[in-house]
Formats: sequence, C-alpha cells, structure tokens
Amino acid sequence: MNQETPVDAPVDTAEGGGRRGRGAGAGAAARRAARSGGGPGKSLTFITRKIREYEVLDEEGLALIEANADTVLEEVGIEFRDDAEALQLWREAGADVKGERVHFPKGLPRSLLKTAPSIYTQHARNPERSVQIGGKATVFAPVYGPPFVRDLEGNRRYATIEDFNNFVKLAYMAPSIHHSGGTVCEPVDVPVNKRHLDMVYAHIKYSDKPFMGSVTAPERAEDTIAMCKLVFGEDYLDQNTVLTSLINANSPMVFDETMVGALKVYARNNQACIVTPFILAGAMSPVTVAGTLTQVLAEVLAGASFTQLIRPGAPVIFGTFASSISMQSGAPTFGTPEPSLVSYGAAQLARRLGLPFRTGGSLCASKVSDAQAAYESANTLNSTLLAGTNFVLHSAGWLEGGLVSSYEKFMMDIDQLGMAQKFAEGVDLSENGQAMDAIRQVGPGSHYLGCDHTQANFQTAFYRSNIADNNSYEQWLAEGEKRADQRGNELARRWLESYEAPYLDPAIDESLKEFIAKKKASMPDAFT
Amino acid sequence: MNQETPVDAPVDTAEGGGRRGRGAGAGAAARRAARSGGGPGKSLTFITRKIREYEVLDEEGLALIEANADTVLEEVGIEFRDDAEALQLWREAGADVKGERVHFPKGLPRSLLKTAPSIYTQHARNPERSVQIGGKATVFAPVYGPPFVRDLEGNRRYATIEDFNNFVKLAYMAPSIHHSGGTVCEPVDVPVNKRHLDMVYAHIKYSDKPFMGSVTAPERAEDTIAMCKLVFGEDYLDQNTVLTSLINANSPMVFDETMVGALKVYARNNQACIVTPFILAGAMSPVTVAGTLTQVLAEVLAGASFTQLIRPGAPVIFGTFASSISMQSGAPTFGTPEPSLVSYGAAQLARRLGLPFRTGGSLCASKVSDAQAAYESANTLNSTLLAGTNFVLHSAGWLEGGLVSSYEKFMMDIDQLGMAQKFAEGVDLSENGQAMDAIRQVGPGSHYLGCDHTQANFQTAFYRSNIADNNSYEQWLAEGEKRADQRGNELARRWLESYEAPYLDPAIDESLKEFIAKKKASMPDAFT
Repeated sequence: MNQETPVDAPVDTAEGGGRRGRGAGAGAAARRAARSGGGPGKSLTFITRKIREYEVLDEEGLALIEANADTVLEEVGIEFRDDAEALQLWREAGADVKGERVHFPKGLPRSLLKTAPSIYTQHARNPERSVQIGGKATVFAPVYGPPFVRDLEGNRRYATIEDFNNFVKLAYMAPSIHHSGGTVCEPVDVPVNKRHLDMVYAHIKYSDKPFMGSVTAPERAEDTIAMCKLVFGEDYLDQNTVLTSLINANSPMVFDETMVGALKVYARNNQACIVTPFILAGAMSPVTVAGTLTQVLAEVLAGASFTQLIRPGAPVIFGTFASSISMQSGAPTFGTPEPSLVSYGAAQLARRLGLPFRTGGSLCASKVSDAQAAYESANTLNSTLLAGTNFVLHSAGWLEGGLVSSYEKFMMDIDQLGMAQKFAEGVDLSENGQAMDAIRQVGPGSHYLGCDHTQANFQTAFYRSNIADNNSYEQWLAEGEKRADQRGNELARRWLESYEAPYLDPAIDESLKEFIAKKKASMPDAFT
Repeated sequence: MNQETPVDAPVDTAEGGGRRGRGAGAGAAARRAARSGGGPGKSLTFITRKIREYEVLDEEGLALIEANADTVLEEVGIEFRDDAEALQLWREAGADVKGERVHFPKGLPRSLLKTAPSIYTQHARNPERSVQIGGKATVFAPVYGPPFVRDLEGNRRYATIEDFNNFVKLAYMAPSIHHSGGTVCEPVDVPVNKRHLDMVYAHIKYSDKPFMGSVTAPERAEDTIAMCKLVFGEDYLDQNTVLTSLINANSPMVFDETMVGALKVYARNNQACIVTPFILAGAMSPVTVAGTLTQVLAEVLAGASFTQLIRPGAPVIFGTFASSISMQSGAPTFGTPEPSLVSYGAAQLARRLGLPFRTGGSLCASKVSDAQAAYESANTLNSTLLAGTNFVLHSAGWLEGGLVSSYEKFMMDIDQLGMAQKFAEGVDLSENGQAMDAIRQVGPGSHYLGCDHTQANFQTAFYRSNIADNNSYEQWLAEGEKRADQRGNELARRWLESYEAPYLDPAIDESLKEFIAKKKASMPDAFT
C-alpha cells in the first residue's frame, strides 16, 4: 500500500483550492445555532476513533479466507461483462481472460492495489467539511437509493425531488452526519436520464458537506465530474478527490458494464470508488459467514484492483454490504448476527489489505419506525462502529430494506450517530477524568449532583439525546404519550422550517444552472 | 483467585444431588415443542462465548484505576452501617475502622478475594438447566424489581402475583433465557413481609431454571435458604450453590444493614452474591467514566471481599449497574455511550480480579416498547455481550428505567437474546463453513438459493426471528400493519396459553406449601 500519507494524519481542513467555496457555511451554521435554541447545533467533524477495533477472526482464520479468495480468483474467476476495454486491460496486466471471465494469477490484484492509498481526503466545497477516509477516521453518510419515502404525514409514496432536497438539507443540518451522501432517495418525478443533474446540484446547493457522484451510466458520471469542475476548478479536481461514489458488484462474481463504466470515469479523474459486493447471503453468496467473506474479498480484490489499472493511485474503498435472507420467504433480513460477523471480518480483511473500509449503517427490514427498526439499526450500527468502518453509507433514514427513506427514522438515527461519535472518544483518563477530587469531596452516603467536579463538567459529561424521553411517566403522559417516532417527526418539521442554505458563490451557482439547462435541453425525457 | 476449577470447564450437567428434580422438565419441553409448531422451541444451554471480549482500557489505564480505587479504599473508606458484626470482622481482618467507616490497608480486599472462585456452577433443580457462571460463560436472566407492569391490554398498573407467575412462565419457556431471575416484578398484592415466599415458590414451581433469593431482609434470605433445602436437600445445599442473589451497594461508598444482612446469610450458606454498586453516574458517582469505574471497583472490592470474611470460598460476582443521569432533569438515561464505556471497563477490572462479572441487560428509559426502548436496549445488550459479561440481569422485559415489567418488551428482548447467543458462536471456519464447494458450484452470475450447500445448511444457517417482519410491504399491509410490539404482545398471549409446568416431585411441592403456610400464619400482613 501507499503509506506516504501517515495512517492517522489529520486532514488539513484549512487547505484551499481552485474556485472552492469560502467556508461561509460554517459561519451561517454558527449564526443559526446562536439564534435557535432548539436547533441542530454545530456540525461535528468526522470521527477520529480513539477506541480499538473489535475482531472476530484470528490470524489463522484471516489467512485461510485470503487463501480461499485467491483460489476463487484464479480457478473460478470474475466476469467483467460487455466491456472490451476492461478485458483488454486485464489481459495486459497478466490475467488469463476466457470470454468475459477473468482468471487472476495468485497475487496479481494485491500487487496492483499497492498504489491505492490507505487514507485519502475527500474535499468538500467548504474546507471545514472535508473528511478523512481511512485509518482511524469514521465518516457517516445518509441513506442511499430508496425509491419511496415515508413522509411527514405518514404516507408511503414515491420520492420526489422535493424529498431529495429535504434529506440533503437535514443531512446538512445534522451535527453527526459528516457527508451529504448520494441518492438520498430516488426523485422519481424527474426523468431518469436527467435526475442525476438535479441530485448533484442539490448536494452542492443545499449543503457544503462532501458528496457522491452518479453511477447509473458512464455519461452521468461524466456530468458529475463536469459539475464538480465548475465548483472546484479543473486542475484542482484532477489532483484532489472531491467525490466518493458507489460501485456495486453484481454478486456473485460479476461486474457489469454500467458499474465498470462509471468506475472508469471516476478512477480516470482521480475520484474515489467504493467497490461493494451487494450481498444477500444465501442468494448472492454462500449461507455461511466464512464463505461470504471469501467471495466478498475475491470480488473486492478484482474490482478495486481494476481502478489501479485505470489510474494508479486513484482512491478506492473496500466495500461490503452484508445481509442475510429469510430462509422461509427469501426476504432480506437486517440486524441479525450473521451480517455483523461478516462486517467485523471484512473490516479485518480490508485493514490487512491497507484499504479504507465501508460497511453497515442503520439498516432494518421494518416497514415503520418501530422497535424492530430500532433493534436492527442499533445492532448494525454497533457492529459498524466497533468494526472500525471508515465510510458508513445508510447511517440515517433507512427503512424497509432500503426501499424507503424515512424522515422520522432519519432524525432518530442521527441521534444514535451522535452517541456513536461520543463513544468513539473512549475513556478520558486525564486528571479531570479520574475525578479523585470529586470522590474525596463527596465521600460515603452523599451525592455528586452539586459537587465542584460535576458543576465543572456539567455541559459535556454525558451525551444529550434530542429524541429520547427520559422524563417521568406522569410528565410523559401529560405531554401526550408520544413515541420516539413521533418526536422524530416533530423534530424533522422544526429543522426543515429553520433550514438556511450555506453560502454558494453566485457565479458558480449560475454556471451550474446553465450547465444543467443545456444538458437537459439536449435530451428527451426518459422515465425508464 | 481459586483456580482449582479450570476457567472454561464445562458444567457437569449430569451431576445429581440430594432430593433434586428428576430432569423431567426437559422431557416435557421436548414433548411440548413437538406438539406446537409455533411454540418457543427447546431451551438453549447457557452461552459459551467463542468470541473475544471488547476492551476500552489498556494496561496503563487499568493500573491507574486500580491504584485510584486502592487510594479511595484507604483514604476515604467504605461505610458498613448498623452492623457491629461486620465492623468487628473488618477490625479482625486488619482494617482501620473509625465509627462505621472502614479504611482498608492497600491490598487487603484483593488478598481476601483469593479464596473466591473465578467460576462456579449454579445448580438448577433440573440438572440440564444448571449454569456455569464465570469464564467464557454468559447467562441471561429476566428483568428484576419493577413495581409496575405493562399488561397485555396495554395498561400500566401495579404488578400482581399473577404477573409474577406469568413472567416466570415466559422465562421458563424462552429458549434464550437461561435463568429464572428473581423479582421479575413486585407482586404488590401480596403483603411485603410474605411476598418472598410466593416468589421463591413460583420460581421452583413454574420453572426448573436456576433462580435468585430474597434480599429485602436477612430473615427472608433465611426463608429462601430453608425452601431450597426442601428442594435440594440440606447437605447438598451446603456444598453446592443453588442461589445467586443481588446485593446492591448504597453508592457512594455505603453498604446498609439490609444488604449486608442478606449477604451474610447467603455467603454463610455457600450461596452466591452479586455485589453491585447501583450507579446513576452524576448522582451516585462522578460524571466521568474513569471516576465511576474507580468508585465501582472500590465498592466491589469492599463488598465482595466481605463475603470471604463470612465464608472463604463462597461465590461472589463483581456487579456493575451503570446508567447516566440527564443533566437537565436528573432522570436516569440508558443505552447512551457512557454506561457502555463503564460496562466494558468494569468487565476488564473484574477479569483482572478473577471474579465473574455482571452488568447491563436490555435497559431503556422509554415508557413504551417503541424505537427508543429498542435502540437503548440494543445498545446496552451489545456492550453487555461484547464486554464478556457472565451474568446478565434485566436481559428481557425491562421498561421505563426499571419501573415497569413489560410483556411485549419481554418477547421482543428474548428474540434479541437469541441473536446474541448466535453471534457468540463466532465464525465457523470448518470446511462446511468455508463453503468453497458452493462457490465453485454456483459460479459467476448465478445464485445460491438451490445449491447443495445451501440445501444442506438451510435449517441452521441464519438466526430466525419470531418478532421481525421481513415480508414485503404489501404482505405486511394485508396482515394489518402491525408494529413489533403488537407482534410481541400476540406472541406472549400464545405462549402463556400453551404453558405447561415442568415436573416437580409432589412430596417436595407439599413440603414447600406447608412451609409457606406455616410462615405466613406466623406473621401479620404488612404492606410497607
């Protein structure tokens, strides 16, 4: 691996570049926070974990899975479909290509990945929002992909561009969300061939956090790059990563032309790809954890190393989307033990490979924001954090196996993300943390409520939830017996009412609008 | 520590003794399971964790907290109130006693604890239900203490003996509950001075899993012992542990006469105590994690080592009940980052001390079984499991900060406990687990649903939830749009309808009833 960047080097958030934004977003956020007491508060920087990673495999187990993955790559091979260039590149790199099936000599993908960075910075248009991806950093991004929303009136309906904008706004306001994400929902009211333009624009206009590019067609990836050049400048973009985009494998063991096409566009432009086997174990991979890990590693090795054939040094993330299926109905299940084991194991494999790692989020199969949704999301998020995941997609708003983006679930989830961030600070062992003065001052049989140490640490001692109701039963009754999802609903309404856009240079804004108008005018409307 | 018992030795569940039950309970359970397809299924044995423990403190941090705890024990001291015998025993052991305050020379409590076992077996009247406590074993026990219930009609009301019996029955039926617990709710319809008799009887009559004794007065502890002698035989009880009971410290740094009185009864009879500082951090301990850990360790060292003054070799558990308070309202909060850090750290301190460890459960502050309840419970349970906790009280049914035992929450929680048990099996690296044949057979672009390996592993591959709804939205809609708590409610009703008591020798049953009748006749009714 390219270890030139020290593994835990902080991101230089003061670093400027090209025609990037002026950092006025932070000022606006501070003004807003000062005005509104019930507001979201100041955005947190990405997490720098001071806690260790949890591991489920020992050296022997890891070596076994790595050897098995090498065997799969060599004997079974991976298909790169409908892409002559990809096959030609693999042939030149020394792979044995039969039809569309690529067989990899042992060690080839690992050898290619030596040029991929272990850590990279994804720059935001507001430098204060730039994030480190890799090492001890963890970055939370919102839900990705749902065609439906559960709206604030409780209806389940197709998502619109207004919903899309709303989720971008909420993610911008959420202190514990570090990244604006990508397809926070599918705006199905916009033609499918034009949708990406409005989505990328929304991320730039309504947020100043880093975001993801379109991957549904190579030309849409090109449009994303073109729009980012308008924001960041052409030279800046070639030398710096401003996009991290999602490239899913068609598991088992296939990459299709759409995904490979988008990957090539981003890698060529020095932009990051997350190469993710999208696994419903039992359907797209074996029913066992070790078998799934083997296939995941093989697929990632093939797809991630391919980015280095396109442009050595282009950032690439080891992605894993782990779910099981219900063996009764075939439906995907979340928050169960097996996907957690897969996540922990895959994180270990990624660290050994020296690549940043993506898994998990706040995943659930529930149709509503009930206890099932919360148990499953919490189980997933706990394993995501302790695995040492670097990039967490779907960390807020995901419902119904990813078919639905939910406003109230989004608000509940970001509260949990705040808790995860606090947990990642670990145990404070400073003199103040040790609190020996407090113990001496209070002594047996008294209480700590008013002691000096408690007073001095009052504000920061404990995580404060804005969703949990910790009041007495009587008070809760008097306030209308609200459930957590209702409180999430009310909070989402309040936030959206108080939203203010971050500063965007009007000249950049105009150039983006012009680009979009020209592009849209050149295409017919397509809805499939 | 007494290491005569090998740390991970399996419990000899075939071991018999005294007038113990005939193991007919297991037969009844098997018959019941065979009859009812929708029934609870066969009880699982206690968990033997094949996974590692998660740790939040390094050697330096642990040594620092241990040194600070020693300082607290020596300089500040711990009070043993209204118990001349306790003070006399401490004086004889070499402590410096001033009034009721005991100051401990450095190393004294640790030295006394050398006779306490690292692992013990708590025997159940059905030997198949005996549990190992300590080492790699984890035992789940239900909620303890609530005066209220949320009943199956949704009412929040005072608990009754009928509720008590119901929770014992549900815990008996629950495959993932290994222990019948103690005060699963307070049967407030029974006079407070007679209540313990009915509670102990219920655990013996309606379950054959191990249970806890009364601690609300020394004479009630004596009654518990007397009843156990009727079940297990006098000699057997003196040589074997059949009770594990809960002794809370009055934090900060006080043990009162009630708790010390009950502790003395149990330790003298070779029965196990869980010495637990009951901590709402910020009120009963400093607002910091390290400060809380220091006080917890000091209190446990004092209370646990006291058991060894009573009877060297009596089993004792290092207990920790960790919660924070809301700094706005003073209310306890659960499932937040700080208590998780306390649990992880305390587990490490217990392992270094060589004592079995208790913390956590499925704790929450929520008034109803909503998303808040589930997020908080899952966060607590995840840290409880990964900390390597040996005895888990409150693992099912806890609501509203422990004021309420909830039927539907109980059913939802035991589903999560089943997942925890599956997770604790870790990754299967056998040839079947590796699934290389499956990967070879399926190949790129196909699916695993029908392959030989999937067929062969169909039944056991993935955890099956009986609470989660993983069906399509349309099917869920057609089935009445039920939330998880409603499904929990329905499941509790079905289970209670199909409950069958385990076999109990009629002669033992008679002797218990006789004992209770005589005791009750000797006392006036007291309701405070």
